[in-house]
Order: sequence, then structure tokens, then C-alpha cells
Amino acid sequence: MTTSGPPEPKPGSQANQAGHHNLDPHLDRYAARTAGMTASEIRALFAVASRPEVVSLAGGMPNLTALPLDSLSTQIAELVAEDGLVALQYGSAHGVPTLREQICEIMAMEGISAHPDDVVVTVGSQMGLDMVTRLFCDPGDVVLAEGPSYVGALGSFAAYQAQVVHVAMDDEGLIPSALREALAEAERAGQRVKFLYTIPNFHNPAGVTLAVERRAEILEICAAHGVLVIEDNPYGLLGFDGQTYPALRASDPDNVVYLGSFSKTFASGLRVGWVLAPHAVREKLVLAAESATLCPPTFNQLVVSRYLSTHDWKGQIKTFRENYRQRRDAILSALEQHMPPGCSWTKPDGGFYVWVTVPEGVDTKAMLPRAVTARVAYASGTGFYADGLGSRQMRLSYCYPTPERLREGVRRLAGVLESEMELVRTFGNVPSRAVSGPQSPSPDTA
Amino acid sequence: MTTSGPPEPKPGSQANQAGHHNLDPHLDRYAARTAGMTASEIRALFAVASRPEVVSLAGGMPNLTALPLDSLSTQIAELVAEDGLVALQYGSAHGVPTLREQICEIMAMEGISAHPDDVVVTVGSQMGLDMVTRLFCDPGDVVLAEGPSYVGALGSFAAYQAQVVHVAMDDEGLIPSALREALAEAERAGQRVKFLYTIPNFHNPAGVTLAVERRAEILEICAAHGVLVIEDNPYGLLGFDGQTYPALRASDPDNVVYLGSFSKTFASGLRVGWVLAPHAVREKLVLAAESATLCPPTFNQLVVSRYLSTHDWKGQIKTFRENYRQRRDAILSALEQHMPPGCSWTKPDGGFYVWVTVPEGVDTKAMLPRAVTARVAYASGTGFYADGLGSRQMRLSYCYPTPERLREGVRRLAGVLESEMELVRTFGNVPSRAVSGPQSPSPDTA
Repeated sequence: MTTSGPPEPKPGSQANQAGHHNLDPHLDRYAARTAGMTASEIRALFAVASRPEVVSLAGGMPNLTALPLDSLSTQIAELVAEDGLVALQYGSAHGVPTLREQICEIMAMEGISAHPDDVVVTVGSQMGLDMVTRLFCDPGDVVLAEGPSYVGALGSFAAYQAQVVHVAMDDEGLIPSALREALAEAERAGQRVKFLYTIPNFHNPAGVTLAVERRAEILEICAAHGVLVIEDNPYGLLGFDGQTYPALRASDPDNVVYLGSFSKTFASGLRVGWVLAPHAVREKLVLAAESATLCPPTFNQLVVSRYLSTHDWKGQIKTFRENYRQRRDAILSALEQHMPPGCSWTKPDGGFYVWVTVPEGVDTKAMLPRAVTARVAYASGTGFYADGLGSRQMRLSYCYPTPERLREGVRRLAGVLESEMELVRTFGNVPSRAVSGPQSPSPDTA
Repeated sequence: MTTSGPPEPKPGSQANQAGHHNLDPHLDRYAARTAGMTASEIRALFAVASRPEVVSLAGGMPNLTALPLDSLSTQIAELVAEDGLVALQYGSAHGVPTLREQICEIMAMEGISAHPDDVVVTVGSQMGLDMVTRLFCDPGDVVLAEGPSYVGALGSFAAYQAQVVHVAMDDEGLIPSALREALAEAERAGQRVKFLYTIPNFHNPAGVTLAVERRAEILEICAAHGVLVIEDNPYGLLGFDGQTYPALRASDPDNVVYLGSFSKTFASGLRVGWVLAPHAVREKLVLAAESATLCPPTFNQLVVSRYLSTHDWKGQIKTFRENYRQRRDAILSALEQHMPPGCSWTKPDGGFYVWVTVPEGVDTKAMLPRAVTARVAYASGTGFYADGLGSRQMRLSYCYPTPERLREGVRRLAGVLESEMELVRTFGNVPSRAVSGPQSPSPDTA
């Protein structure tokens, strides 16, 4: 995205008049939140990594090849011809009522009982996250999030100058005792903790799922400390055995704000997501959403609504799920076969991601340019932490490439890792280039 | 939107446990920006005003009846069938390159020479406004804006806790000497002025256009004071004689951020707008946009791009323009015919709005419920000011109703106004219910 540099200041431009010598004449004008805004480290390599010869295990793009384009085309043509004056017109910031009813039916699959009035349609779940942070976070407020966490969430938290405190996970998801400790520590330090942000199912980037028996405990801890829970669940219907887990929102409607999305179960390019919130919060959300985008696109909402009412959307999700399971099987067996000793990884039973830990001494960020040279890309771990951790981790996305490409990608990655480990054995730790400041997500990491 | 009240706190809910007695158990948790967030006064009457028997002069919805729905339907069907896997997939936060090139061609019609790299596609122009405010405004920073100004802009400024200082206008738009005075006063008070927000063409809500001979002077004043200019131009191509005015951005690329939109020239329900910014600002904008929505909908961008390349979009704008001119003629002649003495109004030569001033003693906000009872609605003036002014003004939108309905609406409005003036003559000023706090826009006021 940043292949061309900033232009030279022109003679007579304000920068010169003011005697400044930095390349951005507007530098003194930015808000405090903007000063440290830098591109995601992942994006810096995006241009190279998107070349066709590179196997990208970096992106979080859903594989849409199974979508029934011909029948979608017909449906959408009918929508425009029959209902175009509504579809192409402004709507309310709250969202189209029929779609909000359908969203309640979808959420019921994970045990949620909700009223359509309490659903707010957003421009993707990212906007929901941004709006929730806007409503609750003053600069310096603490947000608890799993470590690692979704890079797009970290970007929104940074935009509102919230401070992220990571809570440890294991193969069963967020660890309740670690949550208790984090809350106790924040209270000792006199910090205001606004909410726990959590992705309970098929975590991005960790690939793990919060054990059912931990869910009530985590809700109790948060309620006891007066801390809201933000439950982000874009992958919940992508369990490879068709399994679903009870949503946190299902058992605590008053203290959980739930974020949902059609990006992984239908089409990411429509940018339709939603927030389900307690009534009073929902009213504020609508007002915040109005100042952000006026209203979500009516057209896209009607496309989704028509798709849900005319297609076998559950069958379609089953097809997606089976495609992703094949890919998960391919990447796990390739990791087993090729990865050098000392590496470990999570075993996802749904979703898009495997989280890999490499042997001590290897820095995944420093290694990334060498991996791209060897025609494989991944997302290095530090992007998923707000505090600099993650240098021995990487996220591998298996959602988009074919199983063959996934196997080839892992073979290449294992080769790069072998060389890197050899280097470490010979010369000690390989240094990483420093990256500082809050990072913004790239669509590649969604 | 707020027809049902907040639910009663349930036994055992957190609100009760904490011993709170307010109806929103989350009240202590909101950010400072959220505390005063209240619904727009305009919206409170929206449910009633949207009944078919009411002539609504309140909304800013474009009249889309002239759109060629059948051929749009065919085009969009082809897009999905031929290019669906791209259209339905994530894109970049920067926007689709082809569309950004086409946007540069559109802007050239108002004298702007720009590189597609410096264009960022947004979810409507409202998102552009929100992102620019996010980039530049810390709490307490001053934003200058015409008085009156666009209600959606005031909503975004409030969301970032910026302080709005209004600058007076006359029939020739923003008054340069008033701008100088506002800047001098802010400097005396030690305030940080971040930018001037201005709608130079066919102003919302004032209906006036900034005189061409004032444009260079306003740019010079802002540059001399180190203040950025945000130029919001959704109506620029809707001049009723086909006239256009030179964009501020055309003569000062380094100090103007330009906001554009397809909502009034094509279709508002697609939510496609853009920002043109100096290079360094543009890079930050892309990062801010990623944390807000990840990326604008690819689908909508490709729909607009295909429309621009296959339709006679200039001919379509001409058709829209002629429809709006007919409506402008109808409302102005009805105002001339029916309004009681002592009223005055602006004479727009493009855009959607007439700004009416009523005789002293009449409060347009207090009068609105009576107007709605008489089956006519308008937007009362105070919603367009951040400082409580505007009680003697109202905005009449002529964009949506038919000429016949416009005439009938004005006839009803004049009747309500006559009664109100009679009341004032008999009993003195009619008190208004107090409304406080920053207001959020409603799509109805776009």
C-alpha cells in the first residue's frame, strides 16, 4: 500500500513557510491517537506476499469458490428490479428490520434468545467492534483481551487510546485464573477496566475454543468485577463436525455484547455484520453508528436478507465447513510431516487458523522476509499482541489456498525454519527490526 | 426509534446488585463522549412524520425514481456472475483502484487535478468526515463550521469531543471577515483550531453557495493561520443550470481535504463516498479506515464503477438536476404565495434545501409538533447549530416529494405559522422544550 514515498514538500508550501523539515506538513495537527499510527507489520510484506508464486498462509480471506454465483446473480437482479428504490435508498442506522429478525434466528443456533430491536446492523463486525470501543473507552481505560488477540481489535482499541492487557490462554481457551489475576492487578493499580474482549470459538489467531465448562466461570468473574464482556463470534458456525458451542451471550444477556458477521458464512465483500447489545447500550450504539456511517448500505442488507430467505444457507455453511476441514486436515498433516523438532501448534476443530510456536532463538518477524523469498508467507506473532510478545509465534491461515498449495507452503516454511534454526545454533539469536506503536489491521489479516 | 422504553432491571441483575437505581445498568461504564449522546431532536418526530399523510419537508433523501432500474439490474447481475468472487471478497481499505481513477475524472469536472493514490473510498461521505475528525481532533480542539452546518458533521465532531465554533454566512456563503474574527478570537483564547469544515456548494441546510470571489480569500486566511480546510461537496454537480464552481481543493491541494459522495448523484443506499487528501494524510486515513470498517464493501464499489463505465451517468445527473429544479421552483413559488409577512428564505440554485427564517417570537422547535399534527414536517433550525442558535430557522427539503406535495406542504406550513404568529401576538413568546447535549444525525437529515 505504501510503495511510493511521500511527495517532496513543494516550494512555498506551508511546511516550508513554517520552517519545518519533516516530510508531512500536517504532522503538528494530528490528534494524539494518530501520532503513533503505523502500518501493520504484516502489511509491509503484503505486496510481495500476494504474488501468485507465493503460498500465502498470511491472509484471513474466506474461500468463496463454493458460492452459487449464478443463482445469486439472479436473486440480486430481481432485488434491484423489484425493490431497487428501497435497496438504493438511505435506511436507518439500526438496520433493516427483516434482516434483524433473520439474524435472531441465526443466533438461536448457538443458544441465544434475542429481540430484533436489540440487534444493530454494522458495516462488518469490525465496525461493531469500533463502535463498542467508541461507546465505552476513554483514553487510558483498560481492555482485557486474550493473548494473542485479533489484530483488528487491537487496531480499534488503539484508535480510542485504550490500553490492552492480555490474558493468557491454553488449548482450552482463556484461563479463568489468569483473568482473575489480571482483574486483581488492574484494581490494585487503580485502572478502569471497561471490558473483556474475547473470541470464544475457533479463535483468531490461536485456533482454540473456550471449553464449555469455563464459560460460566468467566461470565461470573466479569460480572463480579463489573466488567462487560464483548463476545466476538465470526467463526462459531464453522465447527468441522457441525458442532456449536453455547454463546456467552446465551446465559448472560445483561452483561454481554455480542458481535456477529456474515463475512465467513456468506460473503465478506458485502461487509454486513451485527451487534447484539443490552437495550440501553443498543440505543447508544445506533447513535454512534449514525455519526460513523449514517446507515449501513441498504442494498447489502437486502442482498443478505434475500439470500437467507431463498437459499439453503445452512447447506452452504456445511459446504464451506467441509472445504475448511479438508484444508485443516491438509495443513495439520503437513505440519506433522515437515516441521522440525521443537515446534508446536494448536489443533483447531473449526475456523481458519493454526497458531505455531517455534523453538527459542527463532524470531518469526525477522524470519518473514526470508520466508517470502522462499515463496511462503505467514503472519508473525507480534502483530497479535499489544505488548511486544509473540516473537516465537506465527499464525498460519489455511482458509484460502487449496490443500495441495497448503502442503507445499508448509514444506517451504519448514525449510526456511530449518535454515533459521541452523543459523541460531551457529550464531545465536537472530535480531529483529524494532517495530513500535499501535498497529492497524489490514484486510489481509481479518 | 425509541418507541419502547428500556427494560426493567431484572432481579439479580448487576444494576440491582450494585444498588443502582438508574434504568441503564451500564451508565457508569460509558466513555466521556457517550455520556451526553442523545437522539437528534429531528428524529424524535420521525416516526410520526414518516406517515404517508404527512408531507415531509424534513428528510434529505434523494429522489431516485429516475434511476434506470432494469438496466442496473442487468448490469449488477452480470457483475455477480462474471466477477462475483472478487465482488464478494474483502478488498483493501484504500478502495478499488479502477473506481479511484473514475473518481478523479468526476472531480476534474470541478477543476480538481488529483492522483488516484490520494483518493480513499469510504462508506459514504459520513465515514470520510468521521475519519478526518478521528485523525485530527483531540477532545477540546476547535473546529470551525458554517452556522448553520450539516447535522451529521456536528454528530461526528461531538463523537470526538471537538468544540464547534460557528462562522456566519450570508447569501454568498461563508463571510471571510467572520472567519478572520473567529480565528483571531480562538487564538486569543489559546484554542487549537484544527480545521474549517465547509460545504461551499448548495449548502446543507442553508441552500446558499460560496461566491467564487470569496474562495481564494478563504483559502488564504486558513493557510495563513495554519488551519486545514475540509471541503464537503455532495451536491456540487446538482447546479440547476448545469453550472459548476471551482472546488477549493482545485487551487490548494496541500491544505484542503475534499469529501465526495455518490449518494446524491447515483444511489445513497450503496453508501459509497470518498476522501481526497494530501499524500501523508491519505496514508493515515487508510489506517484509520481499517480500524473502522476493515474495508469498504467491494461489491458496492464495483457496482458504482460498472455504472460509471457503462451508463450515461452525466445524462443521469442532468435528469436528477432537472427533477430537483422543478421541485425547487415549486417550493419557492409556494413560499412566495403562502408564507405570512415577516418570513424570509434563501433561493438555492442547486441542491436540496431552502433555509427559512420566521418572525421573532416563533420558535420552530416548539412549533414542530403542531406542524406534524397539521400533516407537514420540517427540520427545526437548532439541530444545525452546536450552540443553541437556530430557533427562528427551519430547513425545508424539496428533494423528495412531488411538486404537488411540496405546494400542499408549504400551504399547510403557512397555516401553522399563521396560527403560531397569532399566538405570539396574543400571549408573547411560545416556550420551547429544552434539548441539551451533542446530537447525532439521523439518515433522515442527510
